[in-house]
Amino acid sequence: MTDFAWTRDQFHLPEGVIYLDGNSLGPMPKATPARVQQVMEPEWRDQLIGGWVGAGWHLAPERLGDRIAAMIGAEAGHVVVGDTLSIKIYQALAAALALRPDRRVILSDTGNFPSDLYMAQGLAHTLGNGTRLKTVAPEDVAEHITDEVAVLMLTEVDYRTGRRHDMKVLTAKAHEVGAITVWDLAHSFGALPVDLAGCGADFAAGCTYKYINAGPGAPAFIYVAPEHAGRACTALQGWQGHDAPFAFEQDYRPATEVVRMRVGTPPVLQLAALEAALDIWEQVDMNDIRARSIELCERFIAGVEESCPQLRLASPRDAAQRGSQVSFHFEEGYAAMQALIARGVIGDFRAPDIMRFGFTPLYIGPEDVDRAVEILAEIINWDLWDRPEYKVKAIIT
Amino acid sequence: MTDFAWTRDQFHLPEGVIYLDGNSLGPMPKATPARVQQVMEPEWRDQLIGGWVGAGWHLAPERLGDRIAAMIGAEAGHVVVGDTLSIKIYQALAAALALRPDRRVILSDTGNFPSDLYMAQGLAHTLGNGTRLKTVAPEDVAEHITDEVAVLMLTEVDYRTGRRHDMKVLTAKAHEVGAITVWDLAHSFGALPVDLAGCGADFAAGCTYKYINAGPGAPAFIYVAPEHAGRACTALQGWQGHDAPFAFEQDYRPATEVVRMRVGTPPVLQLAALEAALDIWEQVDMNDIRARSIELCERFIAGVEESCPQLRLASPRDAAQRGSQVSFHFEEGYAAMQALIARGVIGDFRAPDIMRFGFTPLYIGPEDVDRAVEILAEIINWDLWDRPEYKVKAIIT
Repeated sequence: MTDFAWTRDQFHLPEGVIYLDGNSLGPMPKATPARVQQVMEPEWRDQLIGGWVGAGWHLAPERLGDRIAAMIGAEAGHVVVGDTLSIKIYQALAAALALRPDRRVILSDTGNFPSDLYMAQGLAHTLGNGTRLKTVAPEDVAEHITDEVAVLMLTEVDYRTGRRHDMKVLTAKAHEVGAITVWDLAHSFGALPVDLAGCGADFAAGCTYKYINAGPGAPAFIYVAPEHAGRACTALQGWQGHDAPFAFEQDYRPATEVVRMRVGTPPVLQLAALEAALDIWEQVDMNDIRARSIELCERFIAGVEESCPQLRLASPRDAAQRGSQVSFHFEEGYAAMQALIARGVIGDFRAPDIMRFGFTPLYIGPEDVDRAVEILAEIINWDLWDRPEYKVKAIIT
Repeated sequence: MTDFAWTRDQFHLPEGVIYLDGNSLGPMPKATPARVQQVMEPEWRDQLIGGWVGAGWHLAPERLGDRIAAMIGAEAGHVVVGDTLSIKIYQALAAALALRPDRRVILSDTGNFPSDLYMAQGLAHTLGNGTRLKTVAPEDVAEHITDEVAVLMLTEVDYRTGRRHDMKVLTAKAHEVGAITVWDLAHSFGALPVDLAGCGADFAAGCTYKYINAGPGAPAFIYVAPEHAGRACTALQGWQGHDAPFAFEQDYRPATEVVRMRVGTPPVLQLAALEAALDIWEQVDMNDIRARSIELCERFIAGVEESCPQLRLASPRDAAQRGSQVSFHFEEGYAAMQALIARGVIGDFRAPDIMRFGFTPLYIGPEDVDRAVEILAEIINWDLWDRPEYKVKAIIT
């Protein structure tokens, strides 16, 4: 049984703050500074170039990939860490398309995180062979999975609403028509149990600065299913993904399996922060996290709906169809979120009118939820809201 | 006048070590740990998500890009930091090729760093339009710059031998035939004066973990010449390169100028380490660095040639044609380098027989050179070398 008092104690949380934005950037684990410091002193300071081997820096992307694999239903040797989520999505997509050279459609949805769509547009343009990105409404994805689709590229949990796709069902449907799947786990990893092998996912990628708490700019990871790993095209053919990076050959030869998805020199300081964050995750049971996350989300929805009738739920009401966040529509959402943040309740705002709150059981408990509801209600029910001069329009550019 | 006693005092250098591998991974500036620590405590710890704006994280790639621009003969606003050198080479190459859609040849040389060649091979494969990488011997590059060449992609200073291409002459020759240039500054930036605008370079990219001393996995940078910046295709279309990243639009619209070359979320810890390293560079004059570098290299060559006749110079003898490193051929180079390292003189080995030594005036002085020569001579002239059982063959895989 996960000890939530212990997990909460692993984090630095500023006094007076209720942090409901860990789905954007997680807070700092107390152990992180010392771990990062260690990479500098003594490792870099004393070992210099020798640190690549002597301090294990060179293999960290694979070592941490194995630890992540164990958390997302993948076997060791099928996940590697590095770069950013956008880059890893690009590689996964390029590899997936190469497996269906006779098809030209990448199917995604309008709820996908824009960077995934942009990367797909860029890849389609570079391919220049008629490959195109087709986006449909999230609820219409299933019916558009036809045999024209080369790749189904989806983010499991919608970044704005928390709406969750059924990875197993959609992957099966994609496979029925011969399509390959690329899953973005940005809002899944650390938010709910993920079972890539169990779902039959072909490729997946995710980031580690949200629920995992590996810090600003923490590296991403990529998963390649065992059946594709030996022949996946890597598109971004960096030397770290070469079969013999230090032989300095003139021609690219991909490394075996997922290691070929490495590109350049890995960010050792960021990897150390990721390592410190993963240490906490190895002490928890993801099923406990999920149960607690649902409890917190339900408590928040009930509280807000009771005390703030002006807010309209933007997330699915059914917990099974939600990630670990809750969003509400509110016309004055931008200004209300600013007021909330000023009172120490940190969520965020997504245009045009979404107030978004992440619930992260590692360090958020029921008492935080109750207090957040109380402060939100005070702000929302503040009678000045109705005066014209307070009608601050939400413009984020 | 650069104060080399001061610069040396800015670095942690292990007792008894003469570090001649700063062309691979620079040593740690003393100021770095505190600067990186600051990003964690208080920035990340206290500001949480607010650090992106409040602590200036979000614009760091542009802010540091401007500082780098000033060091390589570029105007502010034309360099941006991020990702790895391989990724930035890929973007530069894709953008360069897009400017010459009627041509199909990327010209490079066999002395280029393999990752650049691999990335080019990967891009050519993805383009699938007949684009191909043509590599010739470094000394034959000039004569192969013909009007079939779309892009001339070169690393200015050869990673093994230190041989330096003439950026100005080759760029002019490329432009004469209508080709675009992509320059890799990996072994130039911090090693010698670079004048991108003065040479008319179109695109350039470099890394910061070598001569700049920004640490293991430090981010790369990319330069786009002003005349291309407004129309450069970015290929890797990440949200951070979008004109309005926080508007979360469905379609990619590139940001103005070089900012479009940003891809994903920037590595904030590594950027802090880069910032600390650049602080030192702003106190030095690159012409002083170059003069001192030449002095150190000449001193080393003279010393080695006098005391180790078994070694054969692999670098150009003319300092003007060399970067800031000196390499020697020696059949037993691998074993000899191991022995040298064991004695505290750290250089490195590149197959099949190259012993490579970097000279970095910020923290290496004439007395270090003399002592390194002395130890090298003791090792090379050790009479046991000639016995068969010590003939350790150099195999790096």
